[in-house]
Amino acid sequence: MLTKPAHLFDDATRVTAGDSCWRGRTSADYWAFVGPFGGATAATILRALIDHPQRSGDPLALTVNFCAPIAEGDFDLDIRLVKANRSSQHWCVELTQGGADVATLATAVFAERRPSWSHQQAEFPQAPPFEQILPYPKVAGPWVRQYDFRFADGDPDFDSGIKQGPASALSKLWIGDRVPRKIDVLSLMSMSDAFFGRVFHARRELMPFGTVSLTTYFHADAEDLAAEDITRVLAVADAKIFHKSYCDQSGELWSPSGRLLATTTQIAYFKA
Amino acid sequence: MLTKPAHLFDDATRVTAGDSCWRGRTSADYWAFVGPFGGATAATILRALIDHPQRSGDPLALTVNFCAPIAEGDFDLDIRLVKANRSSQHWCVELTQGGADVATLATAVFAERRPSWSHQQAEFPQAPPFEQILPYPKVAGPWVRQYDFRFADGDPDFDSGIKQGPASALSKLWIGDRVPRKIDVLSLMSMSDAFFGRVFHARRELMPFGTVSLTTYFHADAEDLAAEDITRVLAVADAKIFHKSYCDQSGELWSPSGRLLATTTQIAYFKA
Repeated sequence: MLTKPAHLFDDATRVTAGDSCWRGRTSADYWAFVGPFGGATAATILRALIDHPQRSGDPLALTVNFCAPIAEGDFDLDIRLVKANRSSQHWCVELTQGGADVATLATAVFAERRPSWSHQQAEFPQAPPFEQILPYPKVAGPWVRQYDFRFADGDPDFDSGIKQGPASALSKLWIGDRVPRKIDVLSLMSMSDAFFGRVFHARRELMPFGTVSLTTYFHADAEDLAAEDITRVLAVADAKIFHKSYCDQSGELWSPSGRLLATTTQIAYFKA
Repeated sequence: MLTKPAHLFDDATRVTAGDSCWRGRTSADYWAFVGPFGGATAATILRALIDHPQRSGDPLALTVNFCAPIAEGDFDLDIRLVKANRSSQHWCVELTQGGADVATLATAVFAERRPSWSHQQAEFPQAPPFEQILPYPKVAGPWVRQYDFRFADGDPDFDSGIKQGPASALSKLWIGDRVPRKIDVLSLMSMSDAFFGRVFHARRELMPFGTVSLTTYFHADAEDLAAEDITRVLAVADAKIFHKSYCDQSGELWSPSGRLLATTTQIAYFKA
């Protein structure tokens, strides 16, 4: 390889074009506990779709179902344009390794974002500036090291345990790449899975945990993001329920200027 | 046909088993503006999965991407078990008509819900009892007639127009089948798409509108729902942003006793 992308994230989510089958490779830099960080996997899938010659428009929605662990190494992305209309596209992506069962199943919608009436009903979650908050110092896994987390609310405390009843699952934090990188839809996709498990916050301890299904909606197109020209987002995540081994999470990613860039929701497994 | 299901909803979401290809048919009772009510389509897909001989566990997540209009009449459901683990299953469903392009693309996760630590962080949205609220009287389309909507907050007002700035997109309402029917995962799936377009509320007027992608998470299994034994839910829906022809919606479906049964999110097209 003669040229290396400038940023680790771009290296981690690199894809090689094929016909319907594209290729990617897990990254040691974005490794989690038992496999690649799901956000990097989701961003890799999104990158392949964006780079696809048939793609038109901006990503609107991406759902990623994590079906089985991904092993270290190469993977194939079987990409299919399921339906194209005048102004939108529906895609389906299957990630496999060595011809085995599907490990990740994703669907995506792309759309031409036409001008319309515009109204942001949600309120910008106020927070102290990024520079006034200390970075989160603990780096549990390699992928955590790639981000600069600065908690304004819901500072992680995973060592005290659930002694006096459940703690709040709400977190508000700045997220940027540790090595600053301009926010694009790929980083938004990855950051939408970069919250720590809500159950870790609620129980104040770590436990077996894994995202099962993740859906992210993009509320800014490439033009909107170019106009923002930012390297970090203000992120909010919360949960509503923990029940029979599964819990939910909903989140928002905001530009520092107060624009809602993406919303995300996921359902995750936990053992407690 | 010698026996007819007792309830219109069960008739509307009926499926005929096949090998991988199942069959359904649109229902005049659940017709919307330019096609079948999306909630009925989603519930039909879920019914086919639940009835599938290889299915095990309870539905955990269903994402439905509405790719193209569905015409009145028969449709085929191409159902594929993408991956099965010890305690979860990942499915993919494609809805087509007459061998044409995919009109609806869905992915689903089923899981064995094992006992665990349980905690409902979200607060039950208080509302006056169902009996104390008048039913919503306007029936814009056939599908609306199949539900009994009783608004506790965000009463629809689609005739006054957006004169003094955007109105709130928040609604809180009781939803039951017009002919009472016990709440199961099928009705939860359908009801999760039974909110009026948030943009109708925000702009106080009707306009071209269509759900593009819908995701619902189930927080109660069959045993939990049997224990509730209810015929209506308290539902809350809101939106965060309307921008460049697309808007979001998030919602919750609660049992009258205060249990969170399902959460849902969607992204929709609008023309304004």
